[in-house]
Amino acid sequence: MPAPVLATFAFRSEPAPFRIDAMRAVRGAALAPAAYLAVHESTTTHALAPGAPEPLYVLRGSTGNLRYTKNDEKLALAKIPPVLGRAEATRASVIPIRKSEAWWDLPQDERRAILEERSRHITIGLDYVAAIARRLYHSRELGEPFDFVTWFEYAPADADRFAELLAALRASEEWKYVEREVQVDLTRA
Amino acid sequence: MPAPVLATFAFRSEPAPFRIDAMRAVRGAALAPAAYLAVHESTTTHALAPGAPEPLYVLRGSTGNLRYTKNDEKLALAKIPPVLGRAEATRASVIPIRKSEAWWDLPQDERRAILEERSRHITIGLDYVAAIARRLYHSRELGEPFDFVTWFEYAPADADRFAELLAALRASEEWKYVEREVQVDLTRA
Repeated sequence: MPAPVLATFAFRSEPAPFRIDAMRAVRGAALAPAAYLAVHESTTTHALAPGAPEPLYVLRGSTGNLRYTKNDEKLALAKIPPVLGRAEATRASVIPIRKSEAWWDLPQDERRAILEERSRHITIGLDYVAAIARRLYHSRELGEPFDFVTWFEYAPADADRFAELLAALRASEEWKYVEREVQVDLTRA
Repeated sequence: MPAPVLATFAFRSEPAPFRIDAMRAVRGAALAPAAYLAVHESTTTHALAPGAPEPLYVLRGSTGNLRYTKNDEKLALAKIPPVLGRAEATRASVIPIRKSEAWWDLPQDERRAILEERSRHITIGLDYVAAIARRLYHSRELGEPFDFVTWFEYAPADADRFAELLAALRASEEWKYVEREVQVDLTRA
């Protein structure tokens, strides 16, 4: 488990590596309109590099350790690691999510039971991992308006599989605790 | 579970609310010398307020949800919540800790087993909670040199109890995964 990656998602009006194709408030308030997205990564800071163009706004998150995954699930994940940056994966989505205070107030064992035993979150992700690469960024401890920023990459041919994955997660018991979710669909320039 | 508290621990040479009585590298590298500590809290930013005196250096952390605590332990903790800011608790310690990559690479179930079933971390904390108020700040996702900043407050009469608590934790299996720890003892001015 390497050091966390500190990611800053910069929403811009001027061209950047990802074009924003659609933005949709799935639950709760929308994000302000933007045309392009740049993703900045660092191991030490969420500050943008000096001289970088000023974005309209940013979302920030950091990768972290596995918070719910048991050993057998970790071994299954290790067999098919999600590969980010594949040449054919020209489509991407960034989906920031905030869960309710009721979720955060649950003890660890109850959150785990809802997330996996009853919602199959880890198992569902495994079903799609060969086609849909994804990465989870934690934002709650950064004072951000969302608890997580989720990132997905896939080839255009897998767009239907991606929609299936989102539908399966959104139909789960876990998603009853989601109070804000915005889906931003992207094409790599 | 309220929103996270974003804390910035500012180490200073000029007087501040806490005087530093001792600094000791328990494991790994020390921290640079300082004479005073100020603790800044916010729900939105780790940046110091404009106009605040420039510190020698800062450590940053955010409170978070319970990551290992099961429901029965949560109920036990709720009966005797640690009370910060008691008038008689004029002594404090701030102890930043970094764990090894081997720890962070463990799945959740193995970390839980080491932390509580084999090291009794939560139970030991409960034994002392009436005398020793404490708060855990998460730092790893902030790109900090430590994974956690731990904060303790106690009355001078409970100094021996505090030393006992630290000794019990440091003798545990969990502490084999601690690769850096610095103890900073404070008196409230």
